[in-house]
Amino acid sequence: MKKIPGPSKKRLFTLARLLSQQKKEKITSVELSALTGWGEATIRRDISLLELHNGVSNGYDVKILHDAICSSLQINSDQAEKHPCCIVGLGKLGEALLESSVFKGSSFELVAGFDTNFNKIEIMKTEIPLFATLDLEKKIRSLKIEYAVLAVPDEKAQFMADRLIACGIRGIVNYTNTVLSVPKEVRVEHVNTAVILTGMCAC
Amino acid sequence: MKKIPGPSKKRLFTLARLLSQQKKEKITSVELSALTGWGEATIRRDISLLELHNGVSNGYDVKILHDAICSSLQINSDQAEKHPCCIVGLGKLGEALLESSVFKGSSFELVAGFDTNFNKIEIMKTEIPLFATLDLEKKIRSLKIEYAVLAVPDEKAQFMADRLIACGIRGIVNYTNTVLSVPKEVRVEHVNTAVILTGMCAC
Repeated sequence: MKKIPGPSKKRLFTLARLLSQQKKEKITSVELSALTGWGEATIRRDISLLELHNGVSNGYDVKILHDAICSSLQINSDQAEKHPCCIVGLGKLGEALLESSVFKGSSFELVAGFDTNFNKIEIMKTEIPLFATLDLEKKIRSLKIEYAVLAVPDEKAQFMADRLIACGIRGIVNYTNTVLSVPKEVRVEHVNTAVILTGMCAC
Repeated sequence: MKKIPGPSKKRLFTLARLLSQQKKEKITSVELSALTGWGEATIRRDISLLELHNGVSNGYDVKILHDAICSSLQINSDQAEKHPCCIVGLGKLGEALLESSVFKGSSFELVAGFDTNFNKIEIMKTEIPLFATLDLEKKIRSLKIEYAVLAVPDEKAQFMADRLIACGIRGIVNYTNTVLSVPKEVRVEHVNTAVILTGMCAC
């Protein structure tokens, strides 16, 4: 199977969500372009990375395309192993991320939340197991956590990232305002509203 | 001046933040690569888009590089006009985004928060003016809001996006789980932890 690059994976994952909302049987790249705002060529190239053996003369079969994306991204399948991840820092943002159904239907499973505040961990009502940051290293290893969502105060971001990396974390989704310094083998995606706005601004 | 593409703008904005934290006078693309995890070629190409007239034989001058980025992205300057933006939906996530200092030092200014809950708007303590979603159209026009951060419940996302677009909003940072359908001229960036993780996952 062809290796799918990160940006294509992101788009395909979004496409899978979009397709699961469609009621029609066939869909063309022109229609997908209108729904997503991405170029038709980009969409066709992304789809060409999948193992699809069907003609596309009059559009893609919605169900077949959806299933092909899911199988190649290993999502939505009970057999597929899910990647365990955690949220570090349970302030308002961390709490909101914990409560959102964002991991549903993805190949990731939220298995832990960490906060320094013992009180908060005891009081918070959630189905996700919560632990004290004191036990971070122990729990990351025992739960085999691979990815972390970082939502701690800005001034603690680098310190916590260093601790996560020392435990062997493979990727960090960084919701803080701190630019993290990490080794090359660790992936970081910086989610920052101002950075995103700067990228989309036509100024 | 050369037109800077969106992804380069995002990286340059992050570089500017990083440079403002540096204490040394000179920095090389190799060092910047180690700090950010991006390739050296990418960093040099991004910087080549700026109007920099200095040699780089022994690294970039940190202050000159920082100022060149700020001036070309029109950030950090009091003269430069800031782009007014708003947050729609003040649940936990919206509140967290409202309170974070994320817009500081950017070319964006948060000028309004909207929520359907009148009570919440009255009670919430914040320096940002809050309004009822009922007044969305009126306020977006009077405050000349250009960009919106969408943090409403998933099932209301498309409806609110349609209202925002009807008011002439140019871009939406979408923090919901809904894939938005928008006209070509409106930019949307979907911030979704599962999508981001899918993109970075080596599976």
